[in-house]
Amino acid sequence: MTIALFPGSFDPITNGHIETAKKAAEIFEKVYLVAMTNTSKHYLFSPGERADFARDALKDVANIEVLEKPDEITVDLAHELNAKAIVRGVRNSADFRYEQEIAGINKRLAPDINTILLFSSPENSFVASSMIKELAKFDKDVSQFLPEKAAKALRRKLGNEYAE
Amino acid sequence: MTIALFPGSFDPITNGHIETAKKAAEIFEKVYLVAMTNTSKHYLFSPGERADFARDALKDVANIEVLEKPDEITVDLAHELNAKAIVRGVRNSADFRYEQEIAGINKRLAPDINTILLFSSPENSFVASSMIKELAKFDKDVSQFLPEKAAKALRRKLGNEYAE
Amino acid sequence: MTIALFPGSFDPITNGHIETAKKAAEIFEKVYLVAMTNTSKHYLFSPGERADFARDALKDVANIEVLEKPDEITVDLAHELNAKAIVRGVRNSADFRYEQEIAGINKRLAPDINTILLFSSPENSFVASSMIKELAKFDKDVSQFLPEKAAKALRRKLGNEYAE
Amino acid sequence: MTIALFPGSFDPITNGHIETAKKAAEIFEKVYLVAMTNTSKHYLFSPGERADFARDALKDVANIEVLEKPDEITVDLAHELNAKAIVRGVRNSADFRYEQEIAGINKRLAPDINTILLFSSPENSFVASSMIKELAKFDKDVSQFLPEKAAKALRRKLGNEYAE
Amino acid sequence: MTIALFPGSFDPITNGHIETAKKAAEIFEKVYLVAMTNTSKHYLFSPGERADFARDALKDVANIEVLEKPDEITVDLAHELNAKAIVRGVRNSADFRYEQEIAGINKRLAPDINTILLFSSPENSFVASSMIKELAKFDKDVSQFLPEKAAKALRRKLGNEYAE
Amino acid sequence: MTIALFPGSFDPITNGHIETAKKAAEIFEKVYLVAMTNTSKHYLFSPGERADFARDALKDVANIEVLEKPDEITVDLAHELNAKAIVRGVRNSADFRYEQEIAGINKRLAPDINTILLFSSPENSFVASSMIKELAKFDKDVSQFLPEKAAKALRRKLGNEYAE
Repeated sequence: MTIALFPGSFDPITNGHIETAKKAAEIFEKVYLVAMTNTSKHYLFSPGERADFARDALKDVANIEVLEKPDEITVDLAHELNAKAIVRGVRNSADFRYEQEIAGINKRLAPDINTILLFSSPENSFVASSMIKELAKFDKDVSQFLPEKAAKALRRKLGNEYAE
Repeated sequence: MTIALFPGSFDPITNGHIETAKKAAEIFEKVYLVAMTNTSKHYLFSPGERADFARDALKDVANIEVLEKPDEITVDLAHELNAKAIVRGVRNSADFRYEQEIAGINKRLAPDINTILLFSSPENSFVASSMIKELAKFDKDVSQFLPEKAAKALRRKLGNEYAE
Repeated sequence: MTIALFPGSFDPITNGHIETAKKAAEIFEKVYLVAMTNTSKHYLFSPGERADFARDALKDVANIEVLEKPDEITVDLAHELNAKAIVRGVRNSADFRYEQEIAGINKRLAPDINTILLFSSPENSFVASSMIKELAKFDKDVSQFLPEKAAKALRRKLGNEYAE
Repeated sequence: MTIALFPGSFDPITNGHIETAKKAAEIFEKVYLVAMTNTSKHYLFSPGERADFARDALKDVANIEVLEKPDEITVDLAHELNAKAIVRGVRNSADFRYEQEIAGINKRLAPDINTILLFSSPENSFVASSMIKELAKFDKDVSQFLPEKAAKALRRKLGNEYAE
Repeated sequence: MTIALFPGSFDPITNGHIETAKKAAEIFEKVYLVAMTNTSKHYLFSPGERADFARDALKDVANIEVLEKPDEITVDLAHELNAKAIVRGVRNSADFRYEQEIAGINKRLAPDINTILLFSSPENSFVASSMIKELAKFDKDVSQFLPEKAAKALRRKLGNEYAE
Repeated sequence: MTIALFPGSFDPITNGHIETAKKAAEIFEKVYLVAMTNTSKHYLFSPGERADFARDALKDVANIEVLEKPDEITVDLAHELNAKAIVRGVRNSADFRYEQEIAGINKRLAPDINTILLFSSPENSFVASSMIKELAKFDKDVSQFLPEKAAKALRRKLGNEYAE
């Protein structure tokens, strides 16, 4: 069975992430989408909440399983899950260079694991998570960028700060 | 069975191409490496020669099959071969943008086919085919950049032009 | 009256060019779309044909006028037409750098003329003219990328070369 | 009347911002330069101070009006001011990608508003606000990068921290 | 005597920094590697510790001298040390743009000082300091990315936070 | 003595090339500027003419010597001239990537030779040789972009093609 690992913050999951997960599920027989932790980032939601939004958004895709692994690094998890490939989505050349650095270090740590990149579709190529959060802080509707459960949670968490 | 198509000019195949093909063969159960034609390019070798160099270089990889299809476009070939993914190697952000354009048009022509990118290893990330040919024109040794059969053929075709 | 000049090869005009022209027409009171000549390019169509495709595609936009000026450089034409701004469309950072070089030289030649950039919409951001021509050479349908008259002319000119 | 909105942090306004504002004022009949708030940024000066530095620097340009709107998002303000275009200055391809993301989200929120980019002149193309602040922290003269009132205020606020 | 200044945070020094320092030492008769301070950065180690790790790693290179200058800006230090060139290492185009901005401001402050860039070798081109620290936080071995003394110090400082 | 080699097409030499050569001459005790041949390029001027324009433009810089070497590759020439460094000028990230590829291959061929990059000044950062030639074809004044002798030769060679 061909297995892929899709690691990320997913804080919260966006339509762009969902698109990447579904494309991976068309290519691999099994995909693990895993909410992880980058210690230099400040998170809005807990690993459990982040995994829950993802689970809800992808419940109709049989060969995707959502996990939460805040205390592991990606290549260790890939070995644990017997995943041959780490999957990541890319929107533009800035994403590309960031992914090239992560893949460069992962390859030094685990030469047997390959990173593969999937292009975002054009409509998701110019949408940044940071800007969706900025809109939520001004209590704007973000439902066109996020799955329903995540959109509501984000508005509740950030919205009232600035709303009249 | 998960099937991938690795299309390209391969004029001739380089160590970077071979690396990408072998990584794809670790991820997919079957990989077709296919010498194709971009009408705006001037080719040194015929489709048959290009496929032959690739076949020779990859003869030890059981799940890679080499074909030559100079008269087809990639997405038609992917459908013909029942390939769910088009595989391409990328070295830097200039490659990335070029691949994003090709994948953008391919997605408009065939929404069911995904393009996946594989990173070149660091040592192949700064090697351009055009520069390998320039070295061959000055009759320099190119064997560290190309598989044996392709390196000899390139020196024979270009080498004597400048050699004393 | 605020006047803008939209110069280009338009060989032939694409949906991306049309989008840029219409956006300019929303911002400026008068827009001149002008088919010009870059002597280092090989053109498929004559200046007259290129202007005619554009005229046909933009006939419903009252404040856009199409001209053909193969023998002039852009800043001279801008002065002639009393245009305060040169308008250009950009898809990605490679386009951006190319436009920055043209604008850099134009600013040295005519400090009173400003270049403004308009973003392509996402669906036109990954479509390259060269790839549309490549599809036409393989006799593929290009009507989703070009206005009708230009699409037919391109298939006639390139299509039969490769069609069975 | 053709109206443009030039939104930004302006914390404080630099010679590059002033250049962009003046170019916009050559193209549009009315330009609103508005000090706004990005909640993920830490500001040195209040919205009122930021607007005041800008007003002082642009007092000789009749068709530029400076406002402060810390509680609004850009597209809402553009509709309020009847502005057809959002104007932004760009120095290099990193700026370009950042602006492409903002414009991408703004276009999803308000399809009737266009973002236009104006190139920085070469001498302002390699000057980053963050580095001007770093110089001020070492109590260095920053007057060649900022208008007078802003330069003095920045030295007062940051300078003595490191000065012997 | 040709003298160069290699300024940086070196928090801590990596194999990529060491490579750049040694290349500079092949080109210039004297190289000063100086641990400096960027006030917008949060440092793990003091200037003294940072200089000490560098001194230990470069003790075998006779024409390299390590200093610590947390209270000076680079161009002042270059004048003080009579250095004609500021040396910096670059891995990719994101580094390049960042260095172009620093060099742009330095050239405005000190037209007599030139910045020269040295390429990282391929194996160091995809290694980011931030990611080495992330590995250390997960108590992973970082010895393949850092000189010995720095690697041990980093694991002591960050490692136990996440180790079971 | 510290020696550097500045190789290029110089077809013809531009103010940007001259700026890079003079900066190198401030850093190294001896600089060889050498007109060479890239077989994939079409040249307007012979190696002799190209060297002659450069010699004329740099006659006042004592430690710069101009040569013409159309039949050699750069690293062989560097060894011949005992040059420790290959010097190249860079304007933007596209130049950077191109130079990274050349330096990558040169480093594989000659590990003892380092490539160093010098930034163009802002006013030369957006000037492309191809666009200067395009202006000359339209018989426009190019003297602000090229040294005198080269500017006259370029107008003679290209100018009358388009001049009324």
